[in-house]
Amino acid sequence: MASTSWQDRCARRKQAQVDSIPKDWLITLPSEDKGNVLDVPITCGLLTPREIEITETVDVIAILSKLKSGDWSSVETTRAFYKRAIIAHQLTNCLTEIFVERALDRAKEVDDYLKIHGKPIGPLHGLPISLKDQFTMKGLETIMGYVSWIGQHAEKDSVLVEILYELGAVPFVRTNVPQTLMWGETYNHVFGRTTNPYNRRLTPGGSSGGEGALLALKGSPLGVGTDIGGSVRIPSTFCSLYTLRPSYERLPYCGAVNSLEGQESISSVLGPMAQTINAVKLFTKAIIDAKPWRKDPMAIHKAWSEEEYALSEHGKGGKMCFAIMWDNGVVKPHPPLWRAMRMVKRALEAAGHKVIDWVPYKQLEIYKTAEMIFAADGGHDYRAVCEQSGEPLLRSMSLPSDNHGRPIDHPLFRSLLGEPKHYTAYELWRLHKEKRDLRKDQLDYWEATVSQTGTGRPVDAIISPALAYTAVPHGLNTDSFYCTFCNAMDYACSAFPVTYVDPIVDLQHPSHEFYNHEDEAIYKMYDPAVFAGAPVGLQLIGRPLEEEAVIAMTQVVDHALKMMKSY
Amino acid sequence: MASTSWQDRCARRKQAQVDSIPKDWLITLPSEDKGNVLDVPITCGLLTPREIEITETVDVIAILSKLKSGDWSSVETTRAFYKRAIIAHQLTNCLTEIFVERALDRAKEVDDYLKIHGKPIGPLHGLPISLKDQFTMKGLETIMGYVSWIGQHAEKDSVLVEILYELGAVPFVRTNVPQTLMWGETYNHVFGRTTNPYNRRLTPGGSSGGEGALLALKGSPLGVGTDIGGSVRIPSTFCSLYTLRPSYERLPYCGAVNSLEGQESISSVLGPMAQTINAVKLFTKAIIDAKPWRKDPMAIHKAWSEEEYALSEHGKGGKMCFAIMWDNGVVKPHPPLWRAMRMVKRALEAAGHKVIDWVPYKQLEIYKTAEMIFAADGGHDYRAVCEQSGEPLLRSMSLPSDNHGRPIDHPLFRSLLGEPKHYTAYELWRLHKEKRDLRKDQLDYWEATVSQTGTGRPVDAIISPALAYTAVPHGLNTDSFYCTFCNAMDYACSAFPVTYVDPIVDLQHPSHEFYNHEDEAIYKMYDPAVFAGAPVGLQLIGRPLEEEAVIAMTQVVDHALKMMKSY
Repeated sequence: MASTSWQDRCARRKQAQVDSIPKDWLITLPSEDKGNVLDVPITCGLLTPREIEITETVDVIAILSKLKSGDWSSVETTRAFYKRAIIAHQLTNCLTEIFVERALDRAKEVDDYLKIHGKPIGPLHGLPISLKDQFTMKGLETIMGYVSWIGQHAEKDSVLVEILYELGAVPFVRTNVPQTLMWGETYNHVFGRTTNPYNRRLTPGGSSGGEGALLALKGSPLGVGTDIGGSVRIPSTFCSLYTLRPSYERLPYCGAVNSLEGQESISSVLGPMAQTINAVKLFTKAIIDAKPWRKDPMAIHKAWSEEEYALSEHGKGGKMCFAIMWDNGVVKPHPPLWRAMRMVKRALEAAGHKVIDWVPYKQLEIYKTAEMIFAADGGHDYRAVCEQSGEPLLRSMSLPSDNHGRPIDHPLFRSLLGEPKHYTAYELWRLHKEKRDLRKDQLDYWEATVSQTGTGRPVDAIISPALAYTAVPHGLNTDSFYCTFCNAMDYACSAFPVTYVDPIVDLQHPSHEFYNHEDEAIYKMYDPAVFAGAPVGLQLIGRPLEEEAVIAMTQVVDHALKMMKSY
Repeated sequence: MASTSWQDRCARRKQAQVDSIPKDWLITLPSEDKGNVLDVPITCGLLTPREIEITETVDVIAILSKLKSGDWSSVETTRAFYKRAIIAHQLTNCLTEIFVERALDRAKEVDDYLKIHGKPIGPLHGLPISLKDQFTMKGLETIMGYVSWIGQHAEKDSVLVEILYELGAVPFVRTNVPQTLMWGETYNHVFGRTTNPYNRRLTPGGSSGGEGALLALKGSPLGVGTDIGGSVRIPSTFCSLYTLRPSYERLPYCGAVNSLEGQESISSVLGPMAQTINAVKLFTKAIIDAKPWRKDPMAIHKAWSEEEYALSEHGKGGKMCFAIMWDNGVVKPHPPLWRAMRMVKRALEAAGHKVIDWVPYKQLEIYKTAEMIFAADGGHDYRAVCEQSGEPLLRSMSLPSDNHGRPIDHPLFRSLLGEPKHYTAYELWRLHKEKRDLRKDQLDYWEATVSQTGTGRPVDAIISPALAYTAVPHGLNTDSFYCTFCNAMDYACSAFPVTYVDPIVDLQHPSHEFYNHEDEAIYKMYDPAVFAGAPVGLQLIGRPLEEEAVIAMTQVVDHALKMMKSY
């Protein structure tokens, strides 16, 4: 092995992936110039009408109903989604592990159970679920974008996978990630670059970018990603999906591989991604109802609360007060984000809620503190893993192959943070303390909004961009100011789609006094022609461990938007 | 200030403390040779019959009932406990901050509220509560045993104190701690040594040792300590009290001062200490019902669950299965602990429960990992604070003044751990990961007990010593193997009294093959004559965030013990 170059190892592994695709599932590829490929699954001719019917059913509750009644077998449902996933993969390079036989065997087991027992295994009976390339499955490799992890076959299932089996689900593909997981795009040396099916010249985001591309193409009814600085919210807003970033340890991460393992101050969390908010709710409730603390020692012992889902702490769903953070004072969002926020404001007001402005507070300090914690080992963790294979540590997601032979030289790559240093344990503890103090400041600040809401409560939730922009050309997504805010504060939050970039309407804003060079670079990056048609999503930010209420409030916003659009 | 020696600063501060005691509350001190001073509060003549009646009421629910009905005013109740606290202090040196007028003013405010509104302020209406010297109160010093913190007046109340005020309580004294808080005894250069009222030649334990001594003398109806490696359980078992060590962040620590701030992997927690388990329950429920997450950003948003308190996850209080850890395989407990465990076993069996043995698993690995995390800064945090004043960092709790002019040279002071080193952030993360892996191992191990319990559930709770011994002579409490297990695993747990050392019955065990030199030293330390009359307590260990069930199960054990003793 030592004599094999890392490039050769990647080439072999990629070939093995190609070989794992059933030959009769290969399609005639559209031209590489074709940006939007959302129509291809239907038009390419691979899917039967029944498979189209199944995979076009974006309502996961409807799919589960068919599966539990036996109207659709899990085998045919899994095969339908698998075929569509393989189409998606050929279009966007979104998959890592492909294991058709194993998934179909599992689906058959589920079907047999229903036949024998006359009842479903559990709430996710027969449902194919895609997983980010961190959730180990016994016997399968978990490469997570690292060359040195090629050939590492998991000895057991991650806790999430164990629970999914208990609940009757069919884990059926794993999806692509960036090297180190710490990028908001999706590229690694082993599996390459994932593209955005809305426009393949744009990134689907990351780090759960394989999920983003796959789910947007309806190659999976429900996926699971992870998020330490926006990694479920970025691909969701870039790919017109719903997601939840739960608070630390509400959902079971144990047994999943990760980078920066042992960094416990701002923990990565897992969250569902799907075409509907109802699917997000279904997954979250099902996993919590399975009492993940029986298997994951870090999982919070807190039962799913129907009361909190009924907004018991938010006026029981009556008049609520939302606050919109139009601009965090660090980087000003692009015009389509502003339009989306205006749409949400109008929709919520039309639904009888109050909407006020959220004045940003200590946003840059929070971001810097979080980033310093993530980089407290001076990159030692990443380097150690890369050195095992000799692959270079990536310094940007801007690849020569995408950019006329040279990486992009862009002001965005000059971070607001200085060079990373390797801190001592004591220095790290001081950073943790700074973060705690910032959490306290922000909590008091939020509580103080009670004087402005008219509801007798502080602001119920904040609405904000997840990123200052919609999906950007490959290599240009370098910031996560709006997202990391929630990770650092441990705010449970969702992302949801609102609209699409309309080059006619979303004209460049007049120039403003730039907050910093990144703000300037982001301002100058906007070009309606480049972004035309890209999905525009936002996030809804609640308090720590308020997953039930965050989901319910996202349903309120979603419903209000749909009501407004229907007029 | 810089020209004042640290010794002079201590002397002045100690004098200021003496001056803060009302002159007419000084008592004629018993001989220094008098070991057990529990009778002194009644016999010294300072307390009126009414004050004796009030302070002898160990049932906090009964006290609150009198306070809420107005039968007892908060002023007279607070004064009664204050006088008794001052007696306790003269006997054991248990207090730090003494602020009689301020507390009585607060009590009057509470009384006035009841008169004006005809209803109590809240569930803790009028109740005097003692606080470990970490819980800042606006305007008061919080010295926490550090010379350099003399003169640091708090700018605001800690969150716990804020909530206590909301609930109607009267914080009325603060209690002594060891320098750095990281000792299981109670000595610092500013306020000196706290002794055990059951036998002043013994330590009350620590680090919440001031609380232990005060509560044992009924100088407070309810106290609050903190625990990162046994610091509420050690003084509770050494002083015949009940306590709860909740899981991380279930109760609000925010705003309290601490050592090792920012060490977030094995967090210090706060817990109530009292003469009854009902008081522990009352406090815990009252604080959680106050929604501490409104004020403490780290506090877990999990409401008090009456269902879980009704043992919904433990057979609804029907037949349960407890496991006794007689010996953790690292240090063998002294004979009185074994007798106490046998008593609990008999009592639980008589009450219809099953009791099996807990076979220890990875106990030493867990202890070592936790201690390495605590010492990951190589002592930098402690040294930095000590250097500000010039006071020396204590290397043991064995003081020349207690030991014929020289510190004890004892094999216990040679730790099983090597010399501390200052880790890098990356190394610290590796330690965190080791700890997580150990938590997973221990969880799976516990879950696997389902095959032995006969209840269809894993073991409901573990009963074990909190320390391998009862209260020891000053300077000899160096280990916390049994306690730290729970902190590292984040097991919610309680401590409860069982009996007292009986030198006739509790004879030395035959020698065993020693596990290590500490085990040998602890074995040789046992002398029935030295320990005679010392309280013997145990801990009850539940799962993370199971505070409600742990309290309920402790009530089950307590009731079973009382039933057995009553025959």
